[in-house]
Amino acid sequence: MNSVHIVSAFDGELAYVVNKIGAMGGQAERMVEQSVRALVNADAALARRVVADDLLLDEAERDIGDKAIALIGRRQPLAQDLRQVIGAIRISADLERVGDLGKNIAKRAIAISGASHPVSLNRGLESLAELALLQLKDVLDAYASGDVTKLAQMRDRDEQIDLMYTSLFRQLLTFMMENARMITSGTHLLFCAKNIERIGDHATNIAETIYYVQTGQQMAPDRPQGDLTPSIVIRK
Amino acid sequence: MNSVHIVSAFDGELAYVVNKIGAMGGQAERMVEQSVRALVNADAALARRVVADDLLLDEAERDIGDKAIALIGRRQPLAQDLRQVIGAIRISADLERVGDLGKNIAKRAIAISGASHPVSLNRGLESLAELALLQLKDVLDAYASGDVTKLAQMRDRDEQIDLMYTSLFRQLLTFMMENARMITSGTHLLFCAKNIERIGDHATNIAETIYYVQTGQQMAPDRPQGDLTPSIVIRK
Repeated sequence: MNSVHIVSAFDGELAYVVNKIGAMGGQAERMVEQSVRALVNADAALARRVVADDLLLDEAERDIGDKAIALIGRRQPLAQDLRQVIGAIRISADLERVGDLGKNIAKRAIAISGASHPVSLNRGLESLAELALLQLKDVLDAYASGDVTKLAQMRDRDEQIDLMYTSLFRQLLTFMMENARMITSGTHLLFCAKNIERIGDHATNIAETIYYVQTGQQMAPDRPQGDLTPSIVIRK
Repeated sequence: MNSVHIVSAFDGELAYVVNKIGAMGGQAERMVEQSVRALVNADAALARRVVADDLLLDEAERDIGDKAIALIGRRQPLAQDLRQVIGAIRISADLERVGDLGKNIAKRAIAISGASHPVSLNRGLESLAELALLQLKDVLDAYASGDVTKLAQMRDRDEQIDLMYTSLFRQLLTFMMENARMITSGTHLLFCAKNIERIGDHATNIAETIYYVQTGQQMAPDRPQGDLTPSIVIRK
């Protein structure tokens, strides 16, 4: 779908932005992976490093926004070139949010690093994070290659994330009901699970942006359901 | 700070986008106000209307994105005109997210409409929502007028929202510890409170975008703290 055109000053400046987004993506993945590892292993030192790293993503998003606006003003790109630049602004915003969610998990990891929780919950969180990270990796690969063929299947995987999150949400509520002393840590784990589910949503947003950049069309309408947990009721 | 320039085709097309954002803002405010009312009054019928309304905001965001890109391509705006168009894309994304958060509160209102919770918690949620709605109102006024003088004080109010949210978070945890049968509804209320806190964050994002559009500068750096609750530990 890429239109072939002469390499220009525009391409050079766009390449800077695209590379910077690749670097943001790598850092966002690392933050998520490390924050979940810190949570599961009660590793407060690692969690503190994740919290500190978040500033870099904030700066990168601002830099990309500034460069993108300067690039539009200077080169007045059209059609796909323009969509590329606008897409970069959107994607950097999603990646910055992914970093925030990683930081939030890391803060909660610090708060509950003194409490232990059942191995089954840790496994559930790790599996959920693996799936969300796979989404993020695939979408960043698609961004780098411009290949839109695999983007549709990402939505199916986002559905899996939602189902896994729903199951974890139920487990966590049950766990808290059985042991009132676990309510604080259970609550933090609920928010961590929600954060991971939202990382999957941001990956889906990025997939939709890439599709739009490459084709000029919106992806087929959203699947009807997202997070199912707002409707969960468990009675004791 | 507004630069005076000749009324042009660009202005006419920009006015469409600005008006559409005003309408999105009004709808987002209504969704938040109604979702919290539905939650506090256990009004499932009202909550269902809020859930249905969310589609309109999704469509409006897509429409603004399409119009903004077409506008840049056709009119090739520069400087503040360009920032206006990019700002519209950003602000419509924030308002769409505010609508999502309202919808999420509404879904939880439906789930727990059969359970009653203490009046003090309802009051807390209402006060939090009032403050967040005030932020949203002020920021939409600033967007319409282009007046940036009141934007800095919004950050102070966002700090108040964070403090109020922290206090509510503690109350909810304590409430769940005292009554294990309230864990499901307490959890939904925790997420509702978090959603309202995030609505305040989106209002702050919008304030920062308006400041950038009007002045070409970034607002002074973020205040150091946002949500304080990830660090809360309450032991039974």
